[in-house]
Amino acid sequence: MEPRISMITLGVTDLARSRTFYKDGLGLPEHSASNEGVAFFELRGTWLGLYPREALAEDAKVPNEGSGFGGFSMAHNRPSKEAVDATLNEAVAAGGRLVKPAEDVFWGGYSGYFADPDAFLWEVAWNPFMPQLAE
Amino acid sequence: MEPRISMITLGVTDLARSRTFYKDGLGLPEHSASNEGVAFFELRGTWLGLYPREALAEDAKVPNEGSGFGGFSMAHNRPSKEAVDATLNEAVAAGGRLVKPAEDVFWGGYSGYFADPDAFLWEVAWNPFMPQLAE
Repeated sequence: MEPRISMITLGVTDLARSRTFYKDGLGLPEHSASNEGVAFFELRGTWLGLYPREALAEDAKVPNEGSGFGGFSMAHNRPSKEAVDATLNEAVAAGGRLVKPAEDVFWGGYSGYFADPDAFLWEVAWNPFMPQLAE
Repeated sequence: MEPRISMITLGVTDLARSRTFYKDGLGLPEHSASNEGVAFFELRGTWLGLYPREALAEDAKVPNEGSGFGGFSMAHNRPSKEAVDATLNEAVAAGGRLVKPAEDVFWGGYSGYFADPDAFLWEVAWNPFMPQLAE
């Protein structure tokens, strides 16, 4: 396996709502391969996909049953504490929910969390030990 | 927000088991910032992190309750159908579970799924319309 995640696909309950959140709210660039049934955002490295949750379960042939904490988070690293606060504010203005206001954390960084319309978790972090993740 | 996912962190139930799966089984390059409590894999673009599920929930201050389908998948795109089959075989040999053998799919590609030790889903796909995702 090569060291690469090509795409993360989130199974969403309202594709139009999620598309608006990521495209208009957060300003991510939608790719022309998107259509009414799926949205692709061309990011540096790993792309983000949005697809109806039921269709994603069907595609993988797994039951679409599940609730609560999905067991993962996506991180968006920023180059400073101020930038972390600004991104969290931007996400809330776009309709995201502030799950944890940013604070100094035990490992020496500064981080908070917001949730997207389906409660998928994004950590927004300043990590002085891994500045390359904010580039 | 910039067009970037810095890292995906999977909340795992047995960090040693998952570290072995990704490092030794799939051959992903572990970063020197890893330690006994967390594993980082430096990938092109978005990094992969492994962290105990309970600790991840605690970090985000969300309840660690949840079960079933987590509502997302990670994709690993490959340049050919044969390469898709080879990667799925590699994952199974590493202890992954074959969830869906690869097959021709309605959108014109070829894809299958495997599950990691915590049942996190990886799609392995050949997509002739987005060759850049396999690079």
